[in-house]
Amino acid sequence: MSKRQLALNAFILPTGHHIAAWRRADVPEHANHDFGEYVQVARLAEAAKFDAVFVSDSVAVSAGNGGSGLEELALTARGTRLEPFTLLSGLAAVTERIGLIATVSTTYNEPYHLARKFASLDWISKGRAGWNLVTSSAPAEAQNFEQSELPEHGERYRRAEEFLEVVQGLWDSWEDDAFVRDKASGQFFDPTRLHVLDHQGEHYRVRGPLNVARPPQGYPVLVQAGSSEPGKELAVRSAEAIFTAHQSLESAQAFYTDVKGRLAKYGRAPEELKILPGIFPVVGRSEAEAQSKYRELQELIDPRVGVNLLSALIGSDLSGFDVDGPLPELAATNQNKSRQALLLELAHRENLTIRELYLRIAGARGHWTVVGTPIQIADQIQTWFEQGAADGFNVLAPWLPGGLEEFIDLVVPELRRRGLFREEYSGATLREHLGLTRPQNRHTAERDRRAAS
Amino acid sequence: MSKRQLALNAFILPTGHHIAAWRRADVPEHANHDFGEYVQVARLAEAAKFDAVFVSDSVAVSAGNGGSGLEELALTARGTRLEPFTLLSGLAAVTERIGLIATVSTTYNEPYHLARKFASLDWISKGRAGWNLVTSSAPAEAQNFEQSELPEHGERYRRAEEFLEVVQGLWDSWEDDAFVRDKASGQFFDPTRLHVLDHQGEHYRVRGPLNVARPPQGYPVLVQAGSSEPGKELAVRSAEAIFTAHQSLESAQAFYTDVKGRLAKYGRAPEELKILPGIFPVVGRSEAEAQSKYRELQELIDPRVGVNLLSALIGSDLSGFDVDGPLPELAATNQNKSRQALLLELAHRENLTIRELYLRIAGARGHWTVVGTPIQIADQIQTWFEQGAADGFNVLAPWLPGGLEEFIDLVVPELRRRGLFREEYSGATLREHLGLTRPQNRHTAERDRRAAS
Repeated sequence: MSKRQLALNAFILPTGHHIAAWRRADVPEHANHDFGEYVQVARLAEAAKFDAVFVSDSVAVSAGNGGSGLEELALTARGTRLEPFTLLSGLAAVTERIGLIATVSTTYNEPYHLARKFASLDWISKGRAGWNLVTSSAPAEAQNFEQSELPEHGERYRRAEEFLEVVQGLWDSWEDDAFVRDKASGQFFDPTRLHVLDHQGEHYRVRGPLNVARPPQGYPVLVQAGSSEPGKELAVRSAEAIFTAHQSLESAQAFYTDVKGRLAKYGRAPEELKILPGIFPVVGRSEAEAQSKYRELQELIDPRVGVNLLSALIGSDLSGFDVDGPLPELAATNQNKSRQALLLELAHRENLTIRELYLRIAGARGHWTVVGTPIQIADQIQTWFEQGAADGFNVLAPWLPGGLEEFIDLVVPELRRRGLFREEYSGATLREHLGLTRPQNRHTAERDRRAAS
Repeated sequence: MSKRQLALNAFILPTGHHIAAWRRADVPEHANHDFGEYVQVARLAEAAKFDAVFVSDSVAVSAGNGGSGLEELALTARGTRLEPFTLLSGLAAVTERIGLIATVSTTYNEPYHLARKFASLDWISKGRAGWNLVTSSAPAEAQNFEQSELPEHGERYRRAEEFLEVVQGLWDSWEDDAFVRDKASGQFFDPTRLHVLDHQGEHYRVRGPLNVARPPQGYPVLVQAGSSEPGKELAVRSAEAIFTAHQSLESAQAFYTDVKGRLAKYGRAPEELKILPGIFPVVGRSEAEAQSKYRELQELIDPRVGVNLLSALIGSDLSGFDVDGPLPELAATNQNKSRQALLLELAHRENLTIRELYLRIAGARGHWTVVGTPIQIADQIQTWFEQGAADGFNVLAPWLPGGLEEFIDLVVPELRRRGLFREEYSGATLREHLGLTRPQNRHTAERDRRAAS
């Protein structure tokens, strides 16, 4: 094993991550529904040897964008997008090496459906699937699934834990050597290598077995994106990568130390869980050029959009307050708690007005914004990477595809010069890109134990 | 509009439709999970200008193959396969013109999820998606979704009707001209062109709107495959194609006349619903060659597999009976009623033993088996097509890819010589291939009505 290197994911959001990106002249108008645009971005990232593309999700039009703000939503490109399983399966067919991470919520889903689709995606991509496990927190989502009441935060995570347990059990239905395919004898599979799960838990009763063979990766790579306490616990017990949001090195270091420190109690080593903060890079050949690009983007934000976006992230309607006044006192909500705390802390620390705060997050939605030259950005990435804040990054390009292209053309070569990022893929699966081992089938493991005793 | 022509779908089932196909030397061993094999079949069908590829589905290992017959299932290639949404999205990315019809059950699904995935598949494929709507009838499926009791047949269809109503309502969330994308003014969409469904029905409460734009086809093409009474009624009210099973011209004609005759009461014209029986063709350059190919396949069937398959189709365990004796008297089941009636009628009419009956259906599972020369097969296809029994066929190749290749190389040219099948695609979408009109958005239609009055 050579020197530790960065993991880099390209987070694909149609038109890009800055809320006003779609208004740039060089951003394709039809990016939300034009599969070809997604292909272009995935191929860019693959040519640059990124570990994976990453797609987020919601199961409502307005989730994450302010439930009631239809007029404001109509000023953004955030209303619609392609669905992750269909999108990534399409991308799997036209890429060769890059990982494909889909965000899928456990909240309004069935473990059998989800286990099956991820197993299928892992087969189609030959071992490149990853699952970003989330729970659904937006009231607009609940209303699309007959539930007028949103499940309480802790309860959502208890269900998610059991959901994951069922899904992993289903992935182990077939042992890796179950299929003998002996044409002469007529034996296609060995029935002793097929296992019925028969899960009977608090929230789920699922018999199994799964009707897809065990995924090439054993289990698709498990990613977790919540930074709340139940989210972190789920991650340290089960996840292999965390996508997290931090505005400062100190905050990221504290999170990194906390999470890595919890792994031992589950018998896990620090390198079994990769911590990947988001980074929103605006690159210029000079610092002035970078700042000017960023300013141009910021100036494209309609104030109604900014206030609405902030309201949604913070879980409280701010449209009635003076945009140039301070944040009002806010009650705790049932929503995305870690993000709310982060924003309140930021506003308080720097004494920001509502406008100043929305300008901070309109691009990266709470993630780390880095504006500068390739050297400056590489310096900061290296600092986070080498000083215990990150194992890699989820790259939120400000606009697509151009913003990702600039990061790849300008920053990635600098990272390579420093030996921080791969020149070529050394493995074939997402698991191999990330340096994660392939989990053994529980039934095979049990048989091995019995044979050894 | 020129002469009426056949619609032809290629029904992809890994290794092929004959239960013993996988044992042929020329059938790829890894067909169940090797995406490349599916691609090869889809491209073959596309090169031959087929209307669509069609995939069936189940949400359990043993559904349709005998719930308890694990030992017998292990002698077949029917235990596992890729999941339809992921599979067809992958195929969409590597094909250009051919339609992509996915079987998806309404029974353990959520309308919002399904509406979204089909809309996304329709976008990825640029208007080539079709949905074969089924309900789930196998106990093994219920057990994967917390339901130990199977919903009663009629109730399943009542739910399905409402499910479809919700899905179509969600597809109309966005009018076709909703997205203005005016970079200068900052208006991305026109909020008056976005509609909240707010469905509150007996079985579903779904608010909407959908977070995917209206599909390119308006609605993906709706296919229906049940031939029971509630299935037929759903089809005549809403479907645009029926996939059906008939063993004889007379049976197919009776079905065709019945179904086409019911359309008028819903204000629909006969050509708005295409009737596509299954055909299981075994082609030879001589009749003797065809018969010999068929016999070779039949001889590969293990008797345990044959009895188990028949038991599953008929909904009753036949393993305790003499394989060379007659069918026992059977009680009606809650399962696939139309298929059961068809098999009982066939056994009675021809006085078949259990072995003789399973040999009849082991290949085509109740569909029409045609063994002969290209001329003989084209003659029969022409007869069904011209004598009121079919608008086209779902082609169940005995083995894949070779069996489909033979049909394409030998039978399709003969159909073309007779002017019965297209030389080239004239349209771009599945709807256009089938000669179906694009449904107008209900809200646009309502606005047009108001403007006209």
